[in-house]
Amino acid sequence: MHTTTDPVELTSQLIRCPSVTPEEGGAIQHLFELLEDAGFVCTRVDRNGIANLYARWGTHGPVIGFNGHTDVVPTGDPAQWAHDPFGAEIVDGIMYGRGACDMKSGVAAFVAAAIDMASDDPHGSIVLTITGDEEGDGVDGTCAILDWMDQTGEAMDVCLVGEPTCPETMGEMIKIGRRGSMTAWLTARGVQGHSAYPHKARNPIHAMVQLVDRLVAFERVDASEHFDPTTVQVTSFDTGNSANNVIPGQCRAMLNIRFNDAHSSDDLKAWIEDEIAKVSGTTGVDFDIEVKVSGESFVTPQGEFSQMVSDAVAAETGVTPALSTSGGTSDARFIRNHCPVVEVGLVGSSMHQIDERVPVADIVTLKAIYTRILKDFFK
Amino acid sequence: MHTTTDPVELTSQLIRCPSVTPEEGGAIQHLFELLEDAGFVCTRVDRNGIANLYARWGTHGPVIGFNGHTDVVPTGDPAQWAHDPFGAEIVDGIMYGRGACDMKSGVAAFVAAAIDMASDDPHGSIVLTITGDEEGDGVDGTCAILDWMDQTGEAMDVCLVGEPTCPETMGEMIKIGRRGSMTAWLTARGVQGHSAYPHKARNPIHAMVQLVDRLVAFERVDASEHFDPTTVQVTSFDTGNSANNVIPGQCRAMLNIRFNDAHSSDDLKAWIEDEIAKVSGTTGVDFDIEVKVSGESFVTPQGEFSQMVSDAVAAETGVTPALSTSGGTSDARFIRNHCPVVEVGLVGSSMHQIDERVPVADIVTLKAIYTRILKDFFK
Ligand SMILES: [Zn+2]
Ligand SMILES: [Zn+2]
Repeated sequence: MHTTTDPVELTSQLIRCPSVTPEEGGAIQHLFELLEDAGFVCTRVDRNGIANLYARWGTHGPVIGFNGHTDVVPTGDPAQWAHDPFGAEIVDGIMYGRGACDMKSGVAAFVAAAIDMASDDPHGSIVLTITGDEEGDGVDGTCAILDWMDQTGEAMDVCLVGEPTCPETMGEMIKIGRRGSMTAWLTARGVQGHSAYPHKARNPIHAMVQLVDRLVAFERVDASEHFDPTTVQVTSFDTGNSANNVIPGQCRAMLNIRFNDAHSSDDLKAWIEDEIAKVSGTTGVDFDIEVKVSGESFVTPQGEFSQMVSDAVAAETGVTPALSTSGGTSDARFIRNHCPVVEVGLVGSSMHQIDERVPVADIVTLKAIYTRILKDFFK
Repeated sequence: MHTTTDPVELTSQLIRCPSVTPEEGGAIQHLFELLEDAGFVCTRVDRNGIANLYARWGTHGPVIGFNGHTDVVPTGDPAQWAHDPFGAEIVDGIMYGRGACDMKSGVAAFVAAAIDMASDDPHGSIVLTITGDEEGDGVDGTCAILDWMDQTGEAMDVCLVGEPTCPETMGEMIKIGRRGSMTAWLTARGVQGHSAYPHKARNPIHAMVQLVDRLVAFERVDASEHFDPTTVQVTSFDTGNSANNVIPGQCRAMLNIRFNDAHSSDDLKAWIEDEIAKVSGTTGVDFDIEVKVSGESFVTPQGEFSQMVSDAVAAETGVTPALSTSGGTSDARFIRNHCPVVEVGLVGSSMHQIDERVPVADIVTLKAIYTRILKDFFK
């Protein structure tokens, strides 16, 4: 028996599920039933109200995995959309809707490819990890599935993430890693005073300005293979003082750091603390620091797996993809602790925007890429 | 006839008038009646609801003037006071109340001295300019009186301001000028973006940090006779962005500059604009600047008048006063455009504070200083 599952129709069905984070919206359940009918063993790995699906075809190795999410960001004002955000309208070969590119289409493409491959009875297993919590905090999504896999002895040898990866043209980029991301909240505590008598005060803003000026200088002196330079951005600087004759007692700044594999969040925190010590030493202003790490930087070692993905993209699109680590974070940052992971997907230019959209032909191409990777993997 | 007016009793009467800015509270009217009874020609020079008093004894020159204010800052939480803020209680020789040192006592001392001097029929005139709007915006206070004087041909040859001038000990300091004060509000306009893609954004915080770091460096390279160095203080720096993955589109900073007579507000504004041009040139971030000048710096030329004041202080207190230009602004910044002005008054350490207070003996001493100056002036 050979099955042909339509990824375009499946994308439409998923877009019509209103699965705005953290709502499941019927999307996870729809895939559960579809995959169970196709012979996959399906398990809901829900945690703290978040719906997650683990689906497996096959009982022995090798195991190839896919990862994706069915939750979407809010639509914004629906009146600004030219198309129903949950309508999956197709006009001139373009499908419109929230999640059209990020990433109900990607999920539909790998689910369709997996069902078709399973019907060919390959020698090995296919695992699908699909979460309803990627656009939110991400703590009860892919992490919950990976935790459950660890506990139950489930494992993948390699994993593909179906997030959009191409800036403009189908096939031009896959992602073999991601920069790390961390946020630091700094509080400077000086001594309040009158602005006519600054020698009796210690201005925390002056000290914070010195500190962040040192920190943002960092981005100029850093580079690493496969990675853009590490960047340090001050995303807020706040005082809340309205009295022009008052030197305030404290101020705050928020920094976001995107860092390559030359760094870890621990190194960077230690570096910030060193800089704080220098500025505190000369100004007498004390600093508090609070850090949240969204993900460490990582790169999947180049080898058989990334080459297989690259070859499949080139064969189906005629474009040899760049191996990139650019962009924000994705759930690949969790999976990379589990197995080698590569991201390959659609053009992401309309993600999170009004009238998010995807060319129908690209969904078909993406399914073909995934199918080719599956065939090569099981060969 | 020789009159002896009690400055302590008059201070009590004024403290009992609840003249919190901009309320007249009965204080100006009380002085109007007292001075009219003593033979002064009194005129209410009210403007925009602010009560002001112009009182003159005598019709020909030379003319010596006094300036002071009867309005006071709010009490804060009265429950925190150990004494009724409008009670003028005297305990162990200390009088308590809002305005006890700033500056109902100063007004009482020069009014008492002026009434006594007038009863001696001196050869010349005494002018008292007393406002109900010094602690507020100051636009309808002493300025209104000076405007009215210009229009009606009234003039002073010299003027004494009765604000507190001594940091700790009676007699230790008089003020022969003041630093200027100006506030600048800066807005930096960059390009909003995602913190993972800083090359597509222009971070206005980074540009503002560069700018203010240049501006605050100023205070290290400036000095002038009679003046403390010019100081530049950033009094607020605000963004209001809570999203750690967003580079904001704009941010604001507020600067307060206290400047000596090596500078004018025009020079300083031009200097800020030069620095803005440099930072804009390298960052591509635009800046708006808004400036408010509270007062230009000034110094009364040292000479006969300041020597007379200094000698009187030394004779009555045994202390030779320092000739200073320190501290914040006062209405002397307006009067200096009219005639030479010197400030001489009490110890100001409790001004604007809970349990504001004045030693009763100091009020008597201050009246004696003013009386000696009047006698020397008319000699
Ligand atoms: Zn996504
Ligand atoms: Zn005052």
